[in-house]
Amino acid sequence: MLDYKIIEVKQSIFEDNDADAKKLRAEIKEQNTFLVNLMSAPGSGKTSTLCQTIARLNGDMSIGVMEADIDSDVDAATITKAGAKAIQIHTGGMCHLDADMTRQGLRELGTEELDLVFLENVGNLVCPAEFDTGASKNVMILSVPEGDDKPLKYPLMFSVCDVVLINKCDTLPVFSDFSKTLVEERIHKLNPSALVIFISAKTGEGMDQWIDWLRGEVANWRQHE
Amino acid sequence: MLDYKIIEVKQSIFEDNDADAKKLRAEIKEQNTFLVNLMSAPGSGKTSTLCQTIARLNGDMSIGVMEADIDSDVDAATITKAGAKAIQIHTGGMCHLDADMTRQGLRELGTEELDLVFLENVGNLVCPAEFDTGASKNVMILSVPEGDDKPLKYPLMFSVCDVVLINKCDTLPVFSDFSKTLVEERIHKLNPSALVIFISAKTGEGMDQWIDWLRGEVANWRQHE
Repeated sequence: MLDYKIIEVKQSIFEDNDADAKKLRAEIKEQNTFLVNLMSAPGSGKTSTLCQTIARLNGDMSIGVMEADIDSDVDAATITKAGAKAIQIHTGGMCHLDADMTRQGLRELGTEELDLVFLENVGNLVCPAEFDTGASKNVMILSVPEGDDKPLKYPLMFSVCDVVLINKCDTLPVFSDFSKTLVEERIHKLNPSALVIFISAKTGEGMDQWIDWLRGEVANWRQHE
Repeated sequence: MLDYKIIEVKQSIFEDNDADAKKLRAEIKEQNTFLVNLMSAPGSGKTSTLCQTIARLNGDMSIGVMEADIDSDVDAATITKAGAKAIQIHTGGMCHLDADMTRQGLRELGTEELDLVFLENVGNLVCPAEFDTGASKNVMILSVPEGDDKPLKYPLMFSVCDVVLINKCDTLPVFSDFSKTLVEERIHKLNPSALVIFISAKTGEGMDQWIDWLRGEVANWRQHE
């Protein structure tokens, strides 16, 4: 028996996604849930980063994860093993999630006893950037092997994120043309207030800073209800 | 002065993209041009692979490249330096190209004296798979750092491609959990006739097999006019 539900979400009937996202953000604030929309290209390490994050926060917070995928459920299985409450959202071919699809997911997940929920968005640097999911904060992962020119090529994604995690930093010796300075400059040119954290979900490098940011944000979110 | 044009393509007015793609495929066949639609996730090495391909075919064939990107023109600049005729297509935020957008690009590129044209599609494993561009063949790149589970998560992309290039094979010692056997099995389960070639645009590994395939296809394309 699977330890997680698989749900098929339907495309939103709302014409104004921005208004609906604002509404959802207020709804989850009322429920004391902090929702992080995690975006990236395919294969940048969203699921590995989440597994490490769950391991470090376990015991301190109760965590839920909504794994959005076009078809498979490999990620929900991995996340469940890592110790979080998970559901798998199937988008039926859709390349992004909007606020109402996120709401359908939250309803199935059940947020009453959760402090922190991650929405692992579809692996795609284009479409998810265009749709506000209603999340409290947007976080993206860029992995070193993808190259330091990605902010030039997918500017909207880098513009809408509060935090950019640069993952797979343990492979910097192999991808020696990747410049940490240059990527940070390019991100800040698009988005001066973005927090850029260099991490490796494999070695644990930089994970403390990321966990500290999460703890701080969850605490703040509650204070200002 | 730039050595390449930048054009802004407009979304197709045609409702039936499949029919329009079929028409475009016939049109370019008449002009003796072999068009390859090259797709992948961001940062898998499309442009590097094209540069190596151009270097190896230079002198034998005249090559054109249409670089599709949401915004930047870094790739067209790189390709022009590599020795091919290039144009940069800006999609204006669109996450894919359809047949009519491809036609607009070909018109600007000018195909009269070109044997082989590459369309470097937007970096995205979801949306480009859904739109037939009218290309003679579809080719995709999956890079080793992205992981061997990608066929499970983006099945349509792997299903519509004639060739899957597995790039960055020089990094296999670093990404030791990537299984060449498993990725090939997963691709062939979705698409039994797909040709899977393991390459490294950096070291040149496997490039001979890829170049041989291209030469064979261009020759065949001409014979069967």
